[in-house]
Amino acid sequence: MAGNTFGKAFRVSTWGESHGTGIGAVIDGCPPGIVLDPELLQAEMDKRRPGQGGASSPRKEPDRLEILSGTFTPPGEDFPRSTGTPISLAIYNKDAHSKSYDNLREVFRPGHGDISYLAKYGIRDHRGGGRASARETAARVAAGAVAKQVLDQAGIDVLAYTVALGGVGIREKNLEMIGANRFFCPDADAAERMEERVREVRRQGDTVGGIVEIVADCPAGLGEPVFDKLEAELAHGLMSIGAVRGVEFGAGFKVADMLGSENNDEITPVGFASNNAGGILAGISNGNEIVIRVAVKPIPSISKKQQSVNLENETVTIQVGGRHDISAIPRIIPVCEAMVRLTLVDHLLRHMSIAFPME
Amino acid sequence: MAGNTFGKAFRVSTWGESHGTGIGAVIDGCPPGIVLDPELLQAEMDKRRPGQGGASSPRKEPDRLEILSGTFTPPGEDFPRSTGTPISLAIYNKDAHSKSYDNLREVFRPGHGDISYLAKYGIRDHRGGGRASARETAARVAAGAVAKQVLDQAGIDVLAYTVALGGVGIREKNLEMIGANRFFCPDADAAERMEERVREVRRQGDTVGGIVEIVADCPAGLGEPVFDKLEAELAHGLMSIGAVRGVEFGAGFKVADMLGSENNDEITPVGFASNNAGGILAGISNGNEIVIRVAVKPIPSISKKQQSVNLENETVTIQVGGRHDISAIPRIIPVCEAMVRLTLVDHLLRHMSIAFPME
Amino acid sequence: MAGNTFGKAFRVSTWGESHGTGIGAVIDGCPPGIVLDPELLQAEMDKRRPGQGGASSPRKEPDRLEILSGTFTPPGEDFPRSTGTPISLAIYNKDAHSKSYDNLREVFRPGHGDISYLAKYGIRDHRGGGRASARETAARVAAGAVAKQVLDQAGIDVLAYTVALGGVGIREKNLEMIGANRFFCPDADAAERMEERVREVRRQGDTVGGIVEIVADCPAGLGEPVFDKLEAELAHGLMSIGAVRGVEFGAGFKVADMLGSENNDEITPVGFASNNAGGILAGISNGNEIVIRVAVKPIPSISKKQQSVNLENETVTIQVGGRHDISAIPRIIPVCEAMVRLTLVDHLLRHMSIAFPME
Amino acid sequence: MAGNTFGKAFRVSTWGESHGTGIGAVIDGCPPGIVLDPELLQAEMDKRRPGQGGASSPRKEPDRLEILSGTFTPPGEDFPRSTGTPISLAIYNKDAHSKSYDNLREVFRPGHGDISYLAKYGIRDHRGGGRASARETAARVAAGAVAKQVLDQAGIDVLAYTVALGGVGIREKNLEMIGANRFFCPDADAAERMEERVREVRRQGDTVGGIVEIVADCPAGLGEPVFDKLEAELAHGLMSIGAVRGVEFGAGFKVADMLGSENNDEITPVGFASNNAGGILAGISNGNEIVIRVAVKPIPSISKKQQSVNLENETVTIQVGGRHDISAIPRIIPVCEAMVRLTLVDHLLRHMSIAFPME
Repeated sequence: MAGNTFGKAFRVSTWGESHGTGIGAVIDGCPPGIVLDPELLQAEMDKRRPGQGGASSPRKEPDRLEILSGTFTPPGEDFPRSTGTPISLAIYNKDAHSKSYDNLREVFRPGHGDISYLAKYGIRDHRGGGRASARETAARVAAGAVAKQVLDQAGIDVLAYTVALGGVGIREKNLEMIGANRFFCPDADAAERMEERVREVRRQGDTVGGIVEIVADCPAGLGEPVFDKLEAELAHGLMSIGAVRGVEFGAGFKVADMLGSENNDEITPVGFASNNAGGILAGISNGNEIVIRVAVKPIPSISKKQQSVNLENETVTIQVGGRHDISAIPRIIPVCEAMVRLTLVDHLLRHMSIAFPME
Repeated sequence: MAGNTFGKAFRVSTWGESHGTGIGAVIDGCPPGIVLDPELLQAEMDKRRPGQGGASSPRKEPDRLEILSGTFTPPGEDFPRSTGTPISLAIYNKDAHSKSYDNLREVFRPGHGDISYLAKYGIRDHRGGGRASARETAARVAAGAVAKQVLDQAGIDVLAYTVALGGVGIREKNLEMIGANRFFCPDADAAERMEERVREVRRQGDTVGGIVEIVADCPAGLGEPVFDKLEAELAHGLMSIGAVRGVEFGAGFKVADMLGSENNDEITPVGFASNNAGGILAGISNGNEIVIRVAVKPIPSISKKQQSVNLENETVTIQVGGRHDISAIPRIIPVCEAMVRLTLVDHLLRHMSIAFPME
Repeated sequence: MAGNTFGKAFRVSTWGESHGTGIGAVIDGCPPGIVLDPELLQAEMDKRRPGQGGASSPRKEPDRLEILSGTFTPPGEDFPRSTGTPISLAIYNKDAHSKSYDNLREVFRPGHGDISYLAKYGIRDHRGGGRASARETAARVAAGAVAKQVLDQAGIDVLAYTVALGGVGIREKNLEMIGANRFFCPDADAAERMEERVREVRRQGDTVGGIVEIVADCPAGLGEPVFDKLEAELAHGLMSIGAVRGVEFGAGFKVADMLGSENNDEITPVGFASNNAGGILAGISNGNEIVIRVAVKPIPSISKKQQSVNLENETVTIQVGGRHDISAIPRIIPVCEAMVRLTLVDHLLRHMSIAFPME
Repeated sequence: MAGNTFGKAFRVSTWGESHGTGIGAVIDGCPPGIVLDPELLQAEMDKRRPGQGGASSPRKEPDRLEILSGTFTPPGEDFPRSTGTPISLAIYNKDAHSKSYDNLREVFRPGHGDISYLAKYGIRDHRGGGRASARETAARVAAGAVAKQVLDQAGIDVLAYTVALGGVGIREKNLEMIGANRFFCPDADAAERMEERVREVRRQGDTVGGIVEIVADCPAGLGEPVFDKLEAELAHGLMSIGAVRGVEFGAGFKVADMLGSENNDEITPVGFASNNAGGILAGISNGNEIVIRVAVKPIPSISKKQQSVNLENETVTIQVGGRHDISAIPRIIPVCEAMVRLTLVDHLLRHMSIAFPME
């Protein structure tokens, strides 16, 4: 009901605020016997680590993942395996300066949830956004890292990368370049221009948005029809990331201008002739590559002066200081991957419950 | 698990196939005491009724809504009221010609779920799409009509209209024009050009896509943070409509090119100075108008010849006959309204469960 | 939330009141491909049919089960199979005399939910108990009949029988006798004494309680630990039957007087040496027979005069007329079987989602 | 699906094994603004603390409760309040001797879940029962302590006490005596005889069962009809405690021998004339005291020799050493209170969601 759990078969419940003891996730429904090498899980966390310059804030967050339950190293094996019981994951905070938020106690920051949280709860933890902070997504990445180990066994791969940032779009898609620049950008030249754009905007005390594309190799048959269509659940997962303002599949918004004869993917004995559907038909994966794009808004915490009101509804001018990123990209990249993985692993396990032995 | 239920507090479970006995919905969680005038409910159904020409198919579907349970007319009152028990709604089929689908038994139609359903279930009801048929959405509209009566009591209004069809976009937004043309289009001139475009495409045996915008007046405080953010659940609901391929909120995909200082909605003592957020901040409604757009793909059933394969994976050329619409618009309009209403009423009731008396 | 759905993987949502259009159930999550012979399903309904005399009321309810969706007869086969989509089941009312309840509109019947329903909802359908009527259980039996077809494929059998009625207990347990008397009693002699007792109590205008035992052959490994232990979910299902006031497993309440050395079931290479655990250890089936007993209260509708109050909280004397049974037994027998089947099939499917291919 | 979450509106998800890092619970859905004095929460934990002799094991478990998230101390207040976000509770282990369980790695202990867990998961954490250990209940008590603070605001009180232990039953019920003996027994004389009985059985290396009664003051109107009847959910919660083998409400199993005229609680202008219903009618609380009894089995870990098998299915004789209690009573008392509180607070919040403003 209260919305802090994702998934039905592979259920992830997260907890924690930006400036509390830490954040964490409890996974209920991980199949037993999955090898969970702590270093592989930590590697996923490290993809979300803030960089040293440019688009990321200088705040240091080691984000050390701890596994508190749900695993057991069988005698004679090197790594823990899941036991089928809840996997509790925690990342304790080490670097929280709540003092620096004291000046925000009385005002609502534009673009943030300060005003809507207070409307909902009547009480608000003003320190760094509290539960609404992007820090919460670290717990998603942790859970997604576990999901990745399960998906690996089913041959399901997920990859996210940047296709636009600050008005700079890619012109070529060379997935091998993704690891070669800090924006996870598949176009080396565009990555350089993004770097430049980010520097420029940083000087202006402003922030930028962008577009992330996520692709997944996925067997046919995943997804539940009607309300829990695969794209509906993927959209749910991705739109639940704070900075995401739109999501589209395959041809996406372009379908508005297409004819049926253009948009339909013809079928041949060796597969689909095109992929406007983005790998999903009638809510169920069709074996084609799943293709998703999400629109990422500029980070609302800017150094420029903005008009707002305080708790007494009086006009104030605020300037949000502190350690902030210029863009949610690239740190949102592993978060997008995590949400797609959590959705796919959930549907993989939901699907298995119908794989019933029949005459 | 199997995905035929929507909502957590106002739960709607639908059933039925395009060519079976009928379709229906069971609502569990409707508050007691809501007046349910059968004529008001039927009026919502009628908005989805196929038109006589143009974009809609000539198939006649009276779609007579029957209320099978969950209401009771108190002594001395004129209309039934909800009792708090499940409301069972049914629309029995009267006009199903399953014979006309026999030729589709052995082939997979491009753009349809034939191939993915078979991959998932190993068994397929080939008649008119079975469960994957758009006919299923009549049950959503029926449930949405009940949701509307609840929302009315909270002053929450939802309105959907067409902003683009077959490449024709609106240039002005005059909401009073919506009822004056069969596309629910707020631009009279654009509506005429849409009409023309639809006629042209019909002659070609093809179909067109478009864009629908949905707005909602909604008080601040609805939505649950983190995974069940209001936009995440709205996206879930809208993306679960078969023809929808993308969804965006407020500024939507335009945020990719915006600066933080442009995108942030400044706050004044009388409200927000702009509405790039589309009425939702950090997953919770902020009192501003909720603004959503969805991309609607062209209907995949076209009269043109298409390449496909049969059950033996042999190449076949198919031509889908039968009674089909040229566009999911305008019939998708009341379905979009229904999904937004079902999402909002669910969050209204979920929110009330925290309205706890405190010291 | 509102409690009209049972199960997580095999979800059954029921609807309907005693004196409305009918009652029904929607099953979401039935595996595809299950043969659903309508006559086999109807046979389960017929077990709940009121008898001609004695313990059952003379009211005639043909309870004709109709399957509205979710099945498809593949070409060349004789019976419909489940398609994996929702199975909608309906039993339309034919014999509802709501007039005879008019005298109850203003009073609360002792032992019935009249007073608690009004406290909860502020509105009450007074006709025959409305949603609280035992008639609601017909929908459970219908859904349980579908569950039976699934369980048959996994070799899971469920059987319920009467071990006490009106103070008459069984002295021997001969399961072959169950079909030979109308109480589903495994002791022919006890069945005769029960018959006598029921006649006697009927003459007094009173009603009697009893005890039902349910056994199930079930493979080891079903059930989820901690909150969804198999016995917890079985207790939930059985206690949700209106007349049930207690439930116990294996040695049940006798464990209070036992030593650990007496209660523990020792394990041998060919199985357990005893079955005090009733087939469940730590919430998971252990391969031994599952053994459950439930206490069934006397039907509250008696012909004797009782003290109560009316809507104005004034003392009244009421005498409940109409067509009523002397005991919930034997009609509760197929309902108990249905709830155990619905619980087991749900756990069977939930378990399958962890049966993941591992290295 | 995997069963480690309890509740629908006030959702408690627990994690942890007996010999891992610790155990914990995440509460999602606690209303905002509830004062959560850490000392009051710890006081509930302390009720579950092992005693120094007799029925409890000598193992020392300080069970220090830590609150990791979900609270915030508003400026100028002394205690933290819930914020409406997830409350993460942890109890880190300090005293885990997993070495002492090495001899159990290859054998199945009678009366324990060793054999059923292995059947289900194919992998087993053999140390002290792993997830199946009674230690898991500490997380329930922690969550129940939070529930208590919410229920206090609605005037709902819950109290559990021992009515039978090792064959010794109470003869009088003086609730003021409950705090005066270590068995939470309302009969001082019986408590002494229980003490004696426990000493005797300890000398024999055996263990004993008993019966716990739980009462709750609860307003009318809580509970959902049909499947989520209040007694069904209470039975679910209580039967999910490992040692509980039966549960009954009000007159309980005695109803089997009662007439309708005896069992019905007549209604007077000042309330019910009796309470055979145990405070619940048709699944909804009627304002009378809720009365529940549960049968508690003897702890299966006994010092006596028992027959069992090892992983190779060979006969072995085992003798379970280590630090064990003689009875689950009294430590189960706060666990029973916790499960009743968690059920009632869930229904309180579920009920409020229908308290909708109507004309």
